[in-house]
Amino acid sequence: MQPNTEVTHGDTRGELQRLVGRNLRRVRLESSTSQDTFAAQLGYARSYMGDIERGVRNITLKSLEELASRAGIAPMALPVPDDEYGHGSG
Amino acid sequence: MQPNTEVTHGDTRGELQRLVGRNLRRVRLESSTSQDTFAAQLGYARSYMGDIERGVRNITLKSLEELASRAGIAPMALPVPDDEYGHGSG
Repeated sequence: MQPNTEVTHGDTRGELQRLVGRNLRRVRLESSTSQDTFAAQLGYARSYMGDIERGVRNITLKSLEELASRAGIAPMALPVPDDEYGHGSG
Repeated sequence: MQPNTEVTHGDTRGELQRLVGRNLRRVRLESSTSQDTFAAQLGYARSYMGDIERGVRNITLKSLEELASRAGIAPMALPVPDDEYGHGSG
């Protein structure tokens, strides 16, 4: 990735990964599962899952697909806006 | 990113980046702009833009946000499914 100029339209950068984190957390809490158990079920380290839920991991599109696949939901269910979560997602 | 086990539910991996590429192409063609001009307008190298349109770049969520910001559309307009493109996106 090699953008030459830094153009931002209001600093929403990182909002997508925070949104993915909030939605992942919703998926986990729907089954009342702890982060430890959920990470183990999906085959990820607990710290990795915690980072994603807190929105501090700038994951790639393929990692998003893999995460959704392991969680048994559609990839598009993770970056869905908060107010649309649960409407026909996964 | 450090998944320990490779679990895939049918090999759709990479579909999200291909979808982003198709949608970016749609955005570009809506203004009848060539890849060269569009890349220049957004401040990216032509090869980078071509890779993204062809869906061969596994970009990160922040790169997706930056790309959408430069293209003047909402980040969520890029990974939207083909049949939903244009419905209240951007």
